[in-house]
Amino acid sequence: MSNVFKRTHMCGVLNSGNIHENVVLNGWIQKRRNLGGLIFCDLRDKTGIVQVVFDDKIPQDIFEKADSLRSEYVVGIKGMVKERQSKNPEISTGDIEVFANDLVIYSEADTPPIYIKDDDNVDENLRLKYRYLDLRKVKMQKNLTFRHNITKLARDYFDSQGFTEIETPILNKPTPEGARDYLVPSRVNPGKFYALPQSPQLFKQLLMVGGSDRYMQIARCFRDEDLRADRQPEFTQIDLEMSFVDVDDVIEIQEGFLKKLMKEIMHVDIQTPFLRLPYDEAMERYGSDKPDTRFGFELKKLNEVVAGTEFKVFADALEKKGDVRGININGGSEHFSRKDLDKLTDASKHYGAKGLVWMRIGDGEINSSVNKFFTQEQLSEIAAVFDAKPGDLILIAADKPKIVFDTLGFLRREIAGRLGLLNDKQFNFLWVVDFPLFEYDDETDSYSAMHHPFTCPKPEDVPMLDSQPGKVKALAYDIVLNGVELGGGSIRIHDKKLQSKMFEVLGLSKEVCETKFGFLLEAFKYGTPPHGGLAYGLDRLVMLLSGEHSIREVMAFPKNQAAQCMVSDAPTGVPEDQLEELSINIRE
Amino acid sequence: MSNVFKRTHMCGVLNSGNIHENVVLNGWIQKRRNLGGLIFCDLRDKTGIVQVVFDDKIPQDIFEKADSLRSEYVVGIKGMVKERQSKNPEISTGDIEVFANDLVIYSEADTPPIYIKDDDNVDENLRLKYRYLDLRKVKMQKNLTFRHNITKLARDYFDSQGFTEIETPILNKPTPEGARDYLVPSRVNPGKFYALPQSPQLFKQLLMVGGSDRYMQIARCFRDEDLRADRQPEFTQIDLEMSFVDVDDVIEIQEGFLKKLMKEIMHVDIQTPFLRLPYDEAMERYGSDKPDTRFGFELKKLNEVVAGTEFKVFADALEKKGDVRGININGGSEHFSRKDLDKLTDASKHYGAKGLVWMRIGDGEINSSVNKFFTQEQLSEIAAVFDAKPGDLILIAADKPKIVFDTLGFLRREIAGRLGLLNDKQFNFLWVVDFPLFEYDDETDSYSAMHHPFTCPKPEDVPMLDSQPGKVKALAYDIVLNGVELGGGSIRIHDKKLQSKMFEVLGLSKEVCETKFGFLLEAFKYGTPPHGGLAYGLDRLVMLLSGEHSIREVMAFPKNQAAQCMVSDAPTGVPEDQLEELSINIRE
Repeated sequence: MSNVFKRTHMCGVLNSGNIHENVVLNGWIQKRRNLGGLIFCDLRDKTGIVQVVFDDKIPQDIFEKADSLRSEYVVGIKGMVKERQSKNPEISTGDIEVFANDLVIYSEADTPPIYIKDDDNVDENLRLKYRYLDLRKVKMQKNLTFRHNITKLARDYFDSQGFTEIETPILNKPTPEGARDYLVPSRVNPGKFYALPQSPQLFKQLLMVGGSDRYMQIARCFRDEDLRADRQPEFTQIDLEMSFVDVDDVIEIQEGFLKKLMKEIMHVDIQTPFLRLPYDEAMERYGSDKPDTRFGFELKKLNEVVAGTEFKVFADALEKKGDVRGININGGSEHFSRKDLDKLTDASKHYGAKGLVWMRIGDGEINSSVNKFFTQEQLSEIAAVFDAKPGDLILIAADKPKIVFDTLGFLRREIAGRLGLLNDKQFNFLWVVDFPLFEYDDETDSYSAMHHPFTCPKPEDVPMLDSQPGKVKALAYDIVLNGVELGGGSIRIHDKKLQSKMFEVLGLSKEVCETKFGFLLEAFKYGTPPHGGLAYGLDRLVMLLSGEHSIREVMAFPKNQAAQCMVSDAPTGVPEDQLEELSINIRE
Repeated sequence: MSNVFKRTHMCGVLNSGNIHENVVLNGWIQKRRNLGGLIFCDLRDKTGIVQVVFDDKIPQDIFEKADSLRSEYVVGIKGMVKERQSKNPEISTGDIEVFANDLVIYSEADTPPIYIKDDDNVDENLRLKYRYLDLRKVKMQKNLTFRHNITKLARDYFDSQGFTEIETPILNKPTPEGARDYLVPSRVNPGKFYALPQSPQLFKQLLMVGGSDRYMQIARCFRDEDLRADRQPEFTQIDLEMSFVDVDDVIEIQEGFLKKLMKEIMHVDIQTPFLRLPYDEAMERYGSDKPDTRFGFELKKLNEVVAGTEFKVFADALEKKGDVRGININGGSEHFSRKDLDKLTDASKHYGAKGLVWMRIGDGEINSSVNKFFTQEQLSEIAAVFDAKPGDLILIAADKPKIVFDTLGFLRREIAGRLGLLNDKQFNFLWVVDFPLFEYDDETDSYSAMHHPFTCPKPEDVPMLDSQPGKVKALAYDIVLNGVELGGGSIRIHDKKLQSKMFEVLGLSKEVCETKFGFLLEAFKYGTPPHGGLAYGLDRLVMLLSGEHSIREVMAFPKNQAAQCMVSDAPTGVPEDQLEELSINIRE
């Protein structure tokens, strides 16, 4: 005989529509108060909290059992829903209460080390150690359900578009480049190692070679990198690949997905097609390859207007083929004190800027940090580039192009935040396209792939691969929402010769190519369809749409910043004989 | 400008309903024949093959391009569907052909090292090395799609039942017991290791402690075991857990799933509820805890009827508390020659049997391998236990109970197979329930958990935990289809004291418990709901329903029997500096 009460309702769904119904509930005691002849309990499950009342009309033994309840006891109750005398508008069940007539205690509970309350502001390490208690918070359960709903919708959508979800291996081949691999020693093959995948890139391309046509997978990926910022050793991608497609085909499918996602999950209609911004334009206008277009403050190039002026910082920058660029914070002057501007200048140094020039546009006069180097007329010429008006604040950086872009890109978003311009009800999706195929590294005087070495160059740029690789654009695209990169992808090279040429430009020796990518080149021999795809960072997507500020809030059991699981205490030491079986030793 | 033809149809779906339609197809050339003024190509994609014709009415350059086509070239064609003169009833598109008027060659192809034909009987290692070619077979693509459809249906069903799919970590804590773990050295925590999960068992229980209520996950699991038989280093489970449930609740949900699965995937109506066979009865009647009930041949116990006879093999078995049991193959005598019986006897030795007694029931006379030890009257008494009739064949084993069960369990299924009684249109689902909680090991005189140490004993058996652990039954259940275990699970212990007692009976020291399961016991302190669940082996389920005989046929990139990926050549050696970063050495 089972003593489990068969539930009729979840706690959080009861409302005045249920009055006079007999209900059976299971859950945790949030709190209990005995007001003489009446015992009030808040009963909680993943959907919410409902008030349960035990009065002295019920059998004595049940009343006494109810009086023994403490926080976090797990119980089942049977009872009748009644209208509540003093309604509580703060909870969804606040119009009713349940008068209990039966009670079972499934489990008692010690006083928990953290409070089970959404707004409890406890140290995160303690939350992670007692994650199983932290997850009892209705907010955390809502986040997990929200994540489930997004993955469900993704699977439904791509299934309806003819995609097949295919599992690719977790035990992969090490690829000693890019981010660090997690390695797994092989017992059967002593001295050899598997690597956990950084992404299913090679396998999904092989699936296209294999005729799978449209592949999707919600795929676990792994990177052994430093965990500053909001990174996790393992994370999840919505991973996609399609055959016989060009850029437009991939983008069209994705826009269908994002439109449906926003409609069904966020209840927002968004317009498609999205804006497509070429990379160069994104940098020129926003100083970023993931621009937030919810506000203005676009960058203007000042090289011409400041050419020949005497200010050394500008002159030096121009001489070294750098740039002078600025942004205009319309009406921003009054919101930033001298001290604020000093702080922004300090913050800019993280992006490599050695300083920042500011100009306040007054009525007839311009006040600036460089007044002694420029005449009012010269300053007015600069202001004219921005169409600046009295009350505006102009910020200018001069340095190598990358530093200038990074600095101003940071500033426009930072300032928009301070001015309250980041409207979280506005969803500005856009594509950044026409990325450079390569990134140039001054120090080593070499090129590396901006996305990855399988990205297809624009056909019309292929002749420049040898002569001017820095000018070659890629058939690559990133999807950006409100300044955050949600995902990215490309059309891949499907031609063996072009792929070999690509490796050559990247300076990879024949042996390295053979060892690392030989099987892909081999596969390309036997008939490869044109193909391309994309991957979304699922954790970040869920975080963004749920309004959270850390991916740890949308994962059940994240690791801490030392890559440890605080619940289970992984990683741990292992017995010597296990290492022996794996043919490895620990170094002193 | 993209040169990709925008597809209107997949190859395999075209039929006489499409006649006179202009279509655009993409795919691989299966073969090409030039019959003078006409070129015939078979064009293949994942859905099938269609015949494409180039005649001399099309522009010369296209005709010439068509004439250059070879097997596995990847092409796009535009053309019109016409009725075929000589129809080919062997393929779905055999009533039509497509008269091409345009052609693009996306990719040429060397002669592939394996044929792309469903029935090609090539060496499996070669298939695995060129998996990307092997996957082009329409059959392999159908298997992958079939797997996708099953996982999609599972997700849809459990979602509709209020389950949330939650991702649990892949980087776990090592649990040095049970199967061997794959280990992952931690760079940030030198000398420490993660383990890849053998199942998400502990995390799903923690999710129940955390209030997630109904969890599901299609979860990758890992076991570093020998790969004889049909095992893979990584495999996939449909993993489930529910709170506030008893055995009936779990079973009811699963029957709903399996009924829907059979209806929508196999187009078969199956009746629920399924038969529930107690473990003891399954063994007594079928000699197996995963009985195939599509045929009879049930086991009968002969201990009483042979007691006191002089045949030493029987007497010895009985004396050592063993059993004498047999099966009756109704009408089977004529199908098994003396040589056949010798072979079955040999095969039985794999199960530990030292021999096999056979009896042929004749008209009035019984012929047997033990005629000289038994009178005809004694043999008739044995035959009577089986209600044997002339033409029947009785097979008897005598040994320790386990050997007798294993031998006869094997024989009944083996013989049913030879007699053609394994009807693959019949789907006999059943539950095996009331498993023993423990298995006893003579050699070490100790008990181990039959399922795992978190399985809940039947409440009424708890008092026997100390005194007669061997008699304690578990709230455990396996789901069996036609003699194959599809999955299994149990109600879990949710009481800290009972869990500690369980560890005690298993002979685990306090320190071991603390190190390995301390966090679970700690979690149980703070209020744990009654909970239980189940996991299906997805690879096996898909294999069984698709009619395949190896799980490798339903996985995209399986490893070979040396745990190697033949495509990418994983595992491989890694550079010394990578090992140094991980603080490990390779042993000589």
